[in-house]
Amino acid sequence: MPYEFKTVRQVEFYETDMAGIVHYANFFRYMETAEHAFFRSLGFSIAARQAAPAVGWPRVHAECDYVQPLRFEDEVEIHLLVAQKKSKSLSYLFRFRKLNATPPVEVALGKLIVVCVTHDRHGKMSAAPIPKAIAERIQVAPADLLP
Amino acid sequence: MPYEFKTVRQVEFYETDMAGIVHYANFFRYMETAEHAFFRSLGFSIAARQAAPAVGWPRVHAECDYVQPLRFEDEVEIHLLVAQKKSKSLSYLFRFRKLNATPPVEVALGKLIVVCVTHDRHGKMSAAPIPKAIAERIQVAPADLLP
Amino acid sequence: MPYEFKTVRQVEFYETDMAGIVHYANFFRYMETAEHAFFRSLGFSIAARQAAPAVGWPRVHAECDYVQPLRFEDEVEIHLLVAQKKSKSLSYLFRFRKLNATPPVEVALGKLIVVCVTHDRHGKMSAAPIPKAIAERIQVAPADLLP
Amino acid sequence: MPYEFKTVRQVEFYETDMAGIVHYANFFRYMETAEHAFFRSLGFSIAARQAAPAVGWPRVHAECDYVQPLRFEDEVEIHLLVAQKKSKSLSYLFRFRKLNATPPVEVALGKLIVVCVTHDRHGKMSAAPIPKAIAERIQVAPADLLP
Repeated sequence: MPYEFKTVRQVEFYETDMAGIVHYANFFRYMETAEHAFFRSLGFSIAARQAAPAVGWPRVHAECDYVQPLRFEDEVEIHLLVAQKKSKSLSYLFRFRKLNATPPVEVALGKLIVVCVTHDRHGKMSAAPIPKAIAERIQVAPADLLP
Repeated sequence: MPYEFKTVRQVEFYETDMAGIVHYANFFRYMETAEHAFFRSLGFSIAARQAAPAVGWPRVHAECDYVQPLRFEDEVEIHLLVAQKKSKSLSYLFRFRKLNATPPVEVALGKLIVVCVTHDRHGKMSAAPIPKAIAERIQVAPADLLP
Repeated sequence: MPYEFKTVRQVEFYETDMAGIVHYANFFRYMETAEHAFFRSLGFSIAARQAAPAVGWPRVHAECDYVQPLRFEDEVEIHLLVAQKKSKSLSYLFRFRKLNATPPVEVALGKLIVVCVTHDRHGKMSAAPIPKAIAERIQVAPADLLP
Repeated sequence: MPYEFKTVRQVEFYETDMAGIVHYANFFRYMETAEHAFFRSLGFSIAARQAAPAVGWPRVHAECDYVQPLRFEDEVEIHLLVAQKKSKSLSYLFRFRKLNATPPVEVALGKLIVVCVTHDRHGKMSAAPIPKAIAERIQVAPADLLP
């Protein structure tokens, strides 16, 4: 459905730190991975420079609540949910679940707010309406799916 | 003063992404850098395994608001402020200022909540009171410094 | 076969830099990913702390030749080949192929030399013979597969 | 002197991995840091887009020999030496020394070969002579400084 996307990845050694767990900043990389795969699932690329006009999606807000650590070789499901859709921005939630636990357990909860921007020919960004082709394909998740 | 710390770093090439700006996840690395340098400024190390008992500082919450992008070779000041001190946790704010702008401009605002933990001999973490020697050295910043 | 392993990954946005291509240091992360998946394919984990004695695999040499850049969303195959097996070390080659090219094209060639080590109870590492169970499972690739 | 450059950095927590040491791929980031600071010491920026024509410096080869691990809060000196200067490429050596050891100890030895390129208006790279202003400023290190 165009309001959610799930992807699974296995924790890499280089994503851990000396505490033996996934470094907290990497959860934001995981969110991005899910966001971009969500876009691909809709038939778009987050970096579609060939679009006219090309749009970008800088973040204006990012956050994460950490409940349990992730470790090397853990399998983590990142479940993206569209929480809000405005004319120029999108808000996503991300539920991180460790799948190699019995039962699987939610280990973190993330949030991103991204703004649709265009660049003028000097590279200056300004907020712009989400292109219609994209906006039409994205829905807000049903309230009961949102935490 | 034991309620704040400032550090300056220059944006590295490898911290940028194909959008030509510092990747948003790296702001969380910058926060950590300031947090650890703050600890060193107090005479501690965040990874003081020699302490008895050794404590760790996992994050339970992290967030960042992004106002302006940072680019390669920008000089960024990270200003840590202690926003809250509880028996088992600390809350920090981080003001990111781009110094090579006239005048310097605030480009992002971050927040971390960290919990003091000890590990039992099986490696299991549990929240613990902040060791007295550390707690005594840390103050909460005056309200007028907090955004 | 226990002398090679192939894995495919898609280039992430956060792996690119402001030149619009995968940052060169990330090829070493890709090598590690293939190395660890190779170990799992043999029934081991690179971080098997439960082994007696536990062994680690620090790198003593790493190198990479770069032929063509990789970009966001490229599909890259990492083909690990065991180039040499000594009593205490392994040497791997890595052929990087961009699959979303017609025909697929080799974009880089990597090499890692890793040493089997044990840690004494103070954490000090020393080289050690590769455990028999592991050494028996690993073969050197036929010469005609090695570049 | 325009054939060498030294920079010192302190190992960050996020640069370590679960083995408790600096992840091996990060040494290539450290090399880059020294390379770019070397350029700045000559009055250039590695990313000088304002040059006419703008040049880039992709790597064609990178390697590192690891002798001893680096750990959190270690102070590491990265000593860049120009090993070779050709019309279209430069070769650098990097000596990594851990300063907080008595006496300081060499922990790694790196090498980079970078090629000077220009981009045509479609973004395609091709090797190009090093701009005279840059080439004139860079010398090859005396043989007795090279390992």
